[in-house]
Amino acid sequence: MLSLDKAREIINLEIKKIDLQPEPEKLYAPVHYVMALGGKRLRPALVLQACEMFSGNYHVAIPAALGVEIFHNFTLLHDDIMDNASLRRNSPTVHTKWNNNVAILSGDAMQIIALQHIRRTEHENILDVIDTFNETALKVCEGQQFDMDFEKLSNVTVGQYLNMIGLKTAELLAASLKIGALIGSANDLDIQKMYDFGKNMGLAFQLQDDFLDVYANESELGKEIGKDIKANKKTFLLLKTMELADDKDLKAINEWLAREEALDNEKVQAMKSMYEKYQIPYYTEQKIEQYFKNAMENLHEIKVAQLKKEEMMKIINLLKMRNS
Amino acid sequence: MLSLDKAREIINLEIKKIDLQPEPEKLYAPVHYVMALGGKRLRPALVLQACEMFSGNYHVAIPAALGVEIFHNFTLLHDDIMDNASLRRNSPTVHTKWNNNVAILSGDAMQIIALQHIRRTEHENILDVIDTFNETALKVCEGQQFDMDFEKLSNVTVGQYLNMIGLKTAELLAASLKIGALIGSANDLDIQKMYDFGKNMGLAFQLQDDFLDVYANESELGKEIGKDIKANKKTFLLLKTMELADDKDLKAINEWLAREEALDNEKVQAMKSMYEKYQIPYYTEQKIEQYFKNAMENLHEIKVAQLKKEEMMKIINLLKMRNS
Repeated sequence: MLSLDKAREIINLEIKKIDLQPEPEKLYAPVHYVMALGGKRLRPALVLQACEMFSGNYHVAIPAALGVEIFHNFTLLHDDIMDNASLRRNSPTVHTKWNNNVAILSGDAMQIIALQHIRRTEHENILDVIDTFNETALKVCEGQQFDMDFEKLSNVTVGQYLNMIGLKTAELLAASLKIGALIGSANDLDIQKMYDFGKNMGLAFQLQDDFLDVYANESELGKEIGKDIKANKKTFLLLKTMELADDKDLKAINEWLAREEALDNEKVQAMKSMYEKYQIPYYTEQKIEQYFKNAMENLHEIKVAQLKKEEMMKIINLLKMRNS
Repeated sequence: MLSLDKAREIINLEIKKIDLQPEPEKLYAPVHYVMALGGKRLRPALVLQACEMFSGNYHVAIPAALGVEIFHNFTLLHDDIMDNASLRRNSPTVHTKWNNNVAILSGDAMQIIALQHIRRTEHENILDVIDTFNETALKVCEGQQFDMDFEKLSNVTVGQYLNMIGLKTAELLAASLKIGALIGSANDLDIQKMYDFGKNMGLAFQLQDDFLDVYANESELGKEIGKDIKANKKTFLLLKTMELADDKDLKAINEWLAREEALDNEKVQAMKSMYEKYQIPYYTEQKIEQYFKNAMENLHEIKVAQLKKEEMMKIINLLKMRNS
C-alpha cells in the first residue's frame, strides 16, 4: 500500500525531473521556481494513492499526478498576482521576483505544461482523464472569480460561500481522486464515489482553515490568529454569524467591517465574542464533522477490500486531527 | 471546395453558438465579448479548409477550428494586458472595460475552453490533434516572451527575430493547417507539408506587416504610417538595417532609438532614409517572396489533386496581393 509520505516522496523526486526548454529563460525559470517552493503535494499524492487503491500500481498515474500539481501551482501563481501577494511559502511570489508580465505569461505556459503531463497518461481512459482535468480547471477559475466577486458583495449567503469553496478548493481534490481512480481502471460507480469522497473532504478541509484562523493555537498555526477577521474575509464563521445575528448585532458587525482604522486586535476580540454568542464554533465544527462523515461514507461504499482503503482512512484521520 | 469566405461564415455562425455558463458573469462575459469583436478568422478557416482538402468534408473539424480561434483570442487578451493596450479592433480591451484581474482570469478560462473545443474532435487522430495544439500553445508563449525580451535588448539579430515571429505568429497558422490535415486523415508526409506551408506563409505574413507599416499607402492601411518606427519596434526592417549599417549610421540609428522627445515624423523620415540607403525594401520584399515561394513548393508537393489545392493557392495569392 502506498502511504501518503511515500507518495509525496515520489512526487518530489518527479518534480525535480521536470524537463523544460532552457529558453526563453523568463518563461521557464518561474515554472521551476514555483515548483521547487514546496508544499504539501497532497493532490498529486491522492492521484497516486487512488490509482494504487484500485490497480495495485501507481506508476502509470505519475504523469497525471504531476499535471495536477503543476496546475495547482499555476493557480497559486496567477492568484498571487490578482491578490497582490508578495510572499508564497515564505518566498517572493513570481510577480515580485520578476514582474507581472512574466507572472502572467509563465502561468499561461504552466497551464499548458500541466496539460502536456496529463496527456502523457498511458491508459485507455486517457480521454476521460483529460475531460475531468479540463472540467475541473474551469471550475477552479469559476471559484476564484466568485471569491473575488464576494469581496465586493455585502450579502453573500452561507450557501453561496459553500458553492464557492466547493469550486475553488474541493473540486481539484475531488478530481485528483477521480483521475487516480480512472487510471486505476475503477468502475464508474467507484469513480463517482472517489470524486464525492474528495469533494466532501475538500469542503471539510476549507472549513477547518476558516476555523483554525480564529481558534488554532497561535504557535501551532505558525501564523497570527484572526488574519481573516482583520482582512474582512467572508469566511463560513462570519457568514454564519451574519445569518443568525439579530439586527443590532448585524449593525455592529457591519460597522466593524466598514472601519478603516487599524483596530485589529479589538476587532478580532469583538468578532470572536459575536462568534461565541451565536455558537459559531459549535456550528462550524458540526459542519466539518458532517463533511468528514459524508466522506467516510463515500469511502465505505467503494467496492474494494477494506485493507486497500486504509491509506485513505489515514488521510481523513490526519486531516481531522490537524490543528494547524 | 470550401472557399475562405464560406469558411469564415461558418466560423462566425459557430462562434455565436458558443455555450458558456451564465455565471460567474465576470468570468464568461469577457469571453463572449472578445469572441464577438470580430477578426479575420483566418486560422479557424484554415483548419476547415485543410480538412476539406483531404477528406472532402469539413464538418468534423468545426470544434477544433473553434478551439484554435478561441486560443488565438485568448493570446490577444493576455497580450493586451502585457502591452498595456487600451484598444483591440477599435473596442476597449478586456482589462480596460473590466480590470486586470478579470482579464487574467477570463483569459485563463478561455485557454481551457479552447482545449475543451479541441477535445470535442470526433476523429481517431484526436490525441495527435491535442498534442499539436498543446505544443503550439507553448511555442506561442515562447514567442511572446522572446518578443518582450527583445524590447529590452540592444543586440537582437535578424535570425533571432525570425525565430521569434516563427513562434509567435507562424506556429499557430502552421498548426491550424496541420490540425485540419490530421482531422482530414491526411498521410504523415502531407501533414508535415501542410505544417511547413503554414509556417512559411506565416513568416511571409509577419514580414509583410513589418513592410506595410512603413511602405503601405496610408489610406489603404487604415492606420498611420511608421507606428513601428515611432515605437522603436525591432522589426525585420530595423534589424536588417542595423546588420548592414556602417559604424556612423549605426550610431545615428542608436541615437534615434534613444531619443525620448516627440520627433516622430522626423524620426520616421530619418529611418526611412536609412532603410532606402541600405536597400531594405528590396531585401524585405525578397525575403517575403522567398517564404511565399517555399510555401508554394510545400503545397505543390502535397499528394492531392491540383483542383483540391485551389483554395490554398487563392489564399497565398490573396496574401501576396495585400496592401493593408
